[in-house]
Amino acid sequence: MQFFKVKTVEETFALIEENIPAIEQTVVRELGEALNDILAVPVVAKENVPSFDRSTVDGYAVRAKDTYGSSESMPGFLTVAGEVKMGEVPDAVVRHGEAVYAPTGGMMPKGSDSVIMIEHCEDVEGLLNTYKQVAPGENVIRAGEDIKAGETLLAAGTRLRPQELGALASLGIAEVPVFRKLKVGYLSSGDEIVPYQTKTLVEGQIRDINYLTIAGLANEWNVDVVYGGIVRDDFEEFRGRARELYDQVDCLVLSGGSSVGAKDYTTDVIQSLGDPGVFVHGISIKPGKPTILAMANGKPVIGLPGHPASAMIIFKLFGERILRKLKGEKIERKPERIFAKITKNIPSSMGRADYIRVRLFEKEAEWWAEPIIGKSGLITTLVKSDGIVEISSEKEGVSQGEYVPVIPSR
Amino acid sequence: MQFFKVKTVEETFALIEENIPAIEQTVVRELGEALNDILAVPVVAKENVPSFDRSTVDGYAVRAKDTYGSSESMPGFLTVAGEVKMGEVPDAVVRHGEAVYAPTGGMMPKGSDSVIMIEHCEDVEGLLNTYKQVAPGENVIRAGEDIKAGETLLAAGTRLRPQELGALASLGIAEVPVFRKLKVGYLSSGDEIVPYQTKTLVEGQIRDINYLTIAGLANEWNVDVVYGGIVRDDFEEFRGRARELYDQVDCLVLSGGSSVGAKDYTTDVIQSLGDPGVFVHGISIKPGKPTILAMANGKPVIGLPGHPASAMIIFKLFGERILRKLKGEKIERKPERIFAKITKNIPSSMGRADYIRVRLFEKEAEWWAEPIIGKSGLITTLVKSDGIVEISSEKEGVSQGEYVPVIPSR
Repeated sequence: MQFFKVKTVEETFALIEENIPAIEQTVVRELGEALNDILAVPVVAKENVPSFDRSTVDGYAVRAKDTYGSSESMPGFLTVAGEVKMGEVPDAVVRHGEAVYAPTGGMMPKGSDSVIMIEHCEDVEGLLNTYKQVAPGENVIRAGEDIKAGETLLAAGTRLRPQELGALASLGIAEVPVFRKLKVGYLSSGDEIVPYQTKTLVEGQIRDINYLTIAGLANEWNVDVVYGGIVRDDFEEFRGRARELYDQVDCLVLSGGSSVGAKDYTTDVIQSLGDPGVFVHGISIKPGKPTILAMANGKPVIGLPGHPASAMIIFKLFGERILRKLKGEKIERKPERIFAKITKNIPSSMGRADYIRVRLFEKEAEWWAEPIIGKSGLITTLVKSDGIVEISSEKEGVSQGEYVPVIPSR
Repeated sequence: MQFFKVKTVEETFALIEENIPAIEQTVVRELGEALNDILAVPVVAKENVPSFDRSTVDGYAVRAKDTYGSSESMPGFLTVAGEVKMGEVPDAVVRHGEAVYAPTGGMMPKGSDSVIMIEHCEDVEGLLNTYKQVAPGENVIRAGEDIKAGETLLAAGTRLRPQELGALASLGIAEVPVFRKLKVGYLSSGDEIVPYQTKTLVEGQIRDINYLTIAGLANEWNVDVVYGGIVRDDFEEFRGRARELYDQVDCLVLSGGSSVGAKDYTTDVIQSLGDPGVFVHGISIKPGKPTILAMANGKPVIGLPGHPASAMIIFKLFGERILRKLKGEKIERKPERIFAKITKNIPSSMGRADYIRVRLFEKEAEWWAEPIIGKSGLITTLVKSDGIVEISSEKEGVSQGEYVPVIPSR
C-alpha cells in the first residue's frame, strides 16, 4: 500500500489555482449560441445605448418648467403640438408652452427635457391639462445612460448569462470570441463494473452509475463528455485506454479502480500520461479522501474515489473548479454557497473538511439544513439531498443552530 | 386606453396554478440524454441496490465477535482463508477464527458480517493480527441498503438531476418516460425594433435585445425557443404572425408593443388566439406592471412588458412558473430563493410587490444584498446584478439589515 501525503481542501484549491491554465483556443460564436460560454476578450462599447434620448413611459414630452405648479386642483395647460412615432425621428419640436405625445421608447422631440405620464394629464381637444409637475429628465432615458460609447461593458473571462447576451445584442454585437467548448473524457475501471444498460447482473457486479452523475454535472457546466467505456483491472489495458481517451479530450476523469491493485494502477496510469503528473494524492476530506489530481502535458487528470456520492461531491467541488479555470472563466457569479442553520450538532475532526448531504427547509425567513445520514456509497443520499454542507478543516464540528455554508444542488 | 384590473403577485401565482395544465405527451428518453427532463411516471425499484452485501473499505471480512477485545497492545489473531475478487462470487467462506481479504466494493463472503479495515490489521504470512474490534455490519453496505426492491425511488414529476440519473442507472433503467421537451415561441413587436444583428441604427430604432434574454432563460430551463421575428405595429400582420407561431409551439411569448396602439393590439391578438383568453392583465409589481397572461386553447400566452429588465424579471418570475407547470414538474428543488441582509432602507408601496436588482457580497457567514439603482429600461442593471430581492406586497419597504429573499441569477 502506498501512503498518501494528504492535502487539505484549502491546499488543494491553491494547487488547482497554481497548476491549471486556461485553454488558449477561442472560437467566434453567434450570439444566439453563446449562452454560458466564456468571453475571451473584453468588450468595449462602440456606441451609446440607447443611441438617443427615449421616453420611458406613455405620455407627453414637455419642458419641465412649463409644468411647474401643476396639480389636480390647479392644472397647467399646454398646446399639443404633435406626436412621436416609434422608430422615427420626430418632426415635432417642443416649444415653450407645448407638449408632444411620446409613447414608451419613443425618441424625445427637440426642445423637450421630460415626459409627463399619460395618467397625470388629459388631452382635451388639443389642450393638454397637466395635473402634476415633472422634473427635468423625469421619465427619460438619456442617450448612453445604459451603456456609454468607449466603456468596457464586459471583461474577458465573463460567463455569458442571458443578461450579458442582451447587453451585447443592444450594441449590435452578433458574434463574440469565446473560449471553445471543453471536452472531458470519462473512463471507468474495475472488474466488477458493467455498463448501466446491463439488464441482469451476475452476483458481485454493479452498474457504472458514476458515468451518469459525472457527465450530468459536466453537461450542467456547459462541457461535453466523451465516454471511454469500462476497463478491466489490467494495467496495460487501462494505460492504453486512458491514453487513447486522453488524446481526444481537454481533461480526463478516471473513476473507480477500488481494488488495491487498481488503485496502484490508477496512479501509475496517470503518471504515464505526461509531466509534471500527480500534484494531489489524497485530500483530507470526508467523503472522498482517495482523490488524485494531476497535470499531464497541460491537460488536467482527475482520479475520482469510487463511491458514488464521494465521486459526485469531489467532482462538484474540485472538478468544477478545474473546469472553470480551464475554460478561462474569471468573473464568477455569486452565490456559489448559501448559508443555512444546521438542525443538529455534527462532530468533525479538526484538520479534515467534512461535506454533509442535507435537505433544506425554510423557517422564519431562513434556510435550515437537515443532515441526511448515509454511507458515501449510497447514491440515494444525494437523491434525497438539496445540497451539501461544508464543515471546514479548522472546525471541530458545528452546533445546532449555527450558520453553515451549503453548496446547493440545482 | 384600457385600464387594467391589476392582480397581486400572489393572485397571479394562484391563477397560474389554476390555469396551466401539464402537457400530456411523453417520450421515452435514453438515460444519458435525460438530464433535467421531467419524469412522467413514478419509478419503482425492481431489484435491490446493491444486489449483494458489499465491503465499503479495503480490509478483511470477518465475524465481528472474533475481533472483540482486539487492540494495538493486545492484537487478536485470525487465519487468512482467501481473497474476494471484484465482480465475482467469493469461493472462500469465513469460519470462526478466519478472515478473507475483501477490497472496497467486493462481495461479502459467506459467514462474514463485517470488515476490518486494512489500516487496523496486518497480514503476517497468513496470520492476520487485528488491532481493533469491529461491530457487526461495520464497513458493509447491505443488499438493498441504497434502494430496496419494491420501493418507489422517484415520484412522477421529478426533474432528473445528475444524481437521479445515477440512481436510475444503478437499477439498470436505461430509458425513462419523460414529458417531451417544450417549445416556446417568441415574437417581438414594435415599429422601432430591428434585429439585434443590425450593424447601424437609424435614429429612433433600437435592437431586439429581449429575444436573447428570454431565449437564454428558456434554454436554461431546458426549453427550446422558436424565433418568430419582429412584427410592425399593424394589427392584422401581428395577429397573423402570432397565430402562425402559436400553431408551432407550446407557449407563446410576445414582447414589446409599447406604443398605445400596439398595447391594445397585443390584448386583442392574444384574445384572438383562443379561449378562455386573458386571465391576468396587469400585475401590481414593479417593474413589470403591464404583463398579460392568457390561456388559448390549452396553450399559455405571455405578453411581456417592453423594458428589457422588466421583461426578464417577469419572465423569470412567472414564465418559469408557467413553463414548470406545463412541463409537468411537481417536485421542485430548493432553494429557489436565498436570504440576504439588505444594505439600505428601501421604501415600497403596500399592495405592490417590488423586485430590486442587487449585487451580493459575503460578510461574516451571511449574504448581503446591495441594491443596484437604475431604470428598468437598462439592461446593464441586470448585467451588474447577482440576483433580485423580493419585497412582497404586504410590506411597506425593508429596513437596513433586514433579511430579504433573493432570487439568484445563475
